[in-house]
Amino acid sequence: MALERRIAEAADLVTVALDELLPRAEGPESRLTEAMRYAALGPGKRLRTFFAIETGRMFDLDDRPVLRAACALECIQAYSLIHDDLPCMDDDDMRRGRPTVHKAYDEATAVLAGDALQTVAFEILAHPDTHKDGTVRAEMVLRLAQAAGAKGMCGGQMIDMIGVRDDLGAVARMQRLKTGALIAAAFELPLIMAHAGEAERHALMAFAQDLGLAYQIVDDLLDAEGESAVLGKAAGKDAARGKANYVTLLGAAAARERLGLIAQQAKSHLDPFGPRAEFLRASVDFVLERRN
Amino acid sequence: MALERRIAEAADLVTVALDELLPRAEGPESRLTEAMRYAALGPGKRLRTFFAIETGRMFDLDDRPVLRAACALECIQAYSLIHDDLPCMDDDDMRRGRPTVHKAYDEATAVLAGDALQTVAFEILAHPDTHKDGTVRAEMVLRLAQAAGAKGMCGGQMIDMIGVRDDLGAVARMQRLKTGALIAAAFELPLIMAHAGEAERHALMAFAQDLGLAYQIVDDLLDAEGESAVLGKAAGKDAARGKANYVTLLGAAAARERLGLIAQQAKSHLDPFGPRAEFLRASVDFVLERRN
Repeated sequence: MALERRIAEAADLVTVALDELLPRAEGPESRLTEAMRYAALGPGKRLRTFFAIETGRMFDLDDRPVLRAACALECIQAYSLIHDDLPCMDDDDMRRGRPTVHKAYDEATAVLAGDALQTVAFEILAHPDTHKDGTVRAEMVLRLAQAAGAKGMCGGQMIDMIGVRDDLGAVARMQRLKTGALIAAAFELPLIMAHAGEAERHALMAFAQDLGLAYQIVDDLLDAEGESAVLGKAAGKDAARGKANYVTLLGAAAARERLGLIAQQAKSHLDPFGPRAEFLRASVDFVLERRN
Repeated sequence: MALERRIAEAADLVTVALDELLPRAEGPESRLTEAMRYAALGPGKRLRTFFAIETGRMFDLDDRPVLRAACALECIQAYSLIHDDLPCMDDDDMRRGRPTVHKAYDEATAVLAGDALQTVAFEILAHPDTHKDGTVRAEMVLRLAQAAGAKGMCGGQMIDMIGVRDDLGAVARMQRLKTGALIAAAFELPLIMAHAGEAERHALMAFAQDLGLAYQIVDDLLDAEGESAVLGKAAGKDAARGKANYVTLLGAAAARERLGLIAQQAKSHLDPFGPRAEFLRASVDFVLERRN
């Protein structure tokens, strides 16, 4: 299928670019850089990269600078997974079928590898190779920081740690912050590089929001119904921990119905882009049909 | 004494500025923003802020943008202390006479508060209020990221965690990365804002390097000889853990002699600046005479 090939190609491109951009394992601190590479270069769908590259191509940007932005997104994603997996957070031993970083190395190394991967993300965006215009680079740093920080990803993880029980609004806010903000940044960074207009920004931000929500509902359905072997991580965790999510609150049937409506709405936000948005449009079904 | 008043004034200024710039404790994630504020607004000498402000004044910069850069430095400093204090790192219960963040809150909140404080640092630097020129903002982000990352502060902490035993070269590298890089950034960020010339940059970077080294040797002397009550943290930790530092390797007398030479050399780097560098010059003695 053309879309899956395109997603796999984007994943390959970003992995090669990350391999170049991540610090080498040299010096007495090489344990740190090895752990960073273990986490960031491991297997992954790299959907944020795919979204960034597709958005860039819609606006006729060169792949190369967009790939650097994608590397920054993947560094933030990798850092957040390392820290989320820590014993004091979700306490996960496995991630994508491999030992998590604190299992493969140790907790101190995992904390530091996450820390330094976050730093690399901003280092990459701020570097002149990412865009010739410093104002564009600074705006990308600003937006990624807003998406990753206390009013974005970190805030969402805090809500998740405190735990949400019976409140769909709180579940929605947690999703918007924890995963939605970084998915939106995957579209926003290329939009900044392209100096896209307000109408185009709004349409793609609305698409990103629906897509992020759809992704989360599928996650919750997989957590409720998936198999650990296919997921590459433990299944049924939310229910076991008494955590509320879309499926525990709505039930699987109603969650699936809502998913269908959101998917339809997501695609409608792409109408103004016509055939240019072909692969982004198809990615909605890809998100709906994923099994891990 | 004029210098101490000036240092205290800089600390007050940056604390007020941080209070404004840090996210408010609102929403279900307020536990996170509270912990960030607890760590970043607590007592501290704020020497990096003092160095940044003095450097800015030498180049006739307005205090306001320099203070924003100082806020970014203090956020990085605060984040690194939170993570260094974690049970899996140095396992410290007290910091500056108060419970550490994972004691006052919990480990998960401490990890996230450190993460989000790092993010805020880059968000502040990248914001248009910090400097009108985007290229300057992006360069500041780049330099702070280099100072904080795997080839800077995080790399130094990794070396510290692995442990250095009998090698003065490794102790020196650890210091340069773990604390020296961020001290140097306190001078470098205002230098970037001031578009300072190469000769001035080199002189102040050499000063920063000597000053950072002097600071570390004093730290090691205090760890060997200081009292916990005055330090506000446990004393004698390095020896107890079998960790090498300047004092365990050289002995106190030789370390103190080396300190005198480095202090002299540090001051000589300021010669080209004449009376403009009065307070930076005096700060060398302040660093030498500190008791905590």
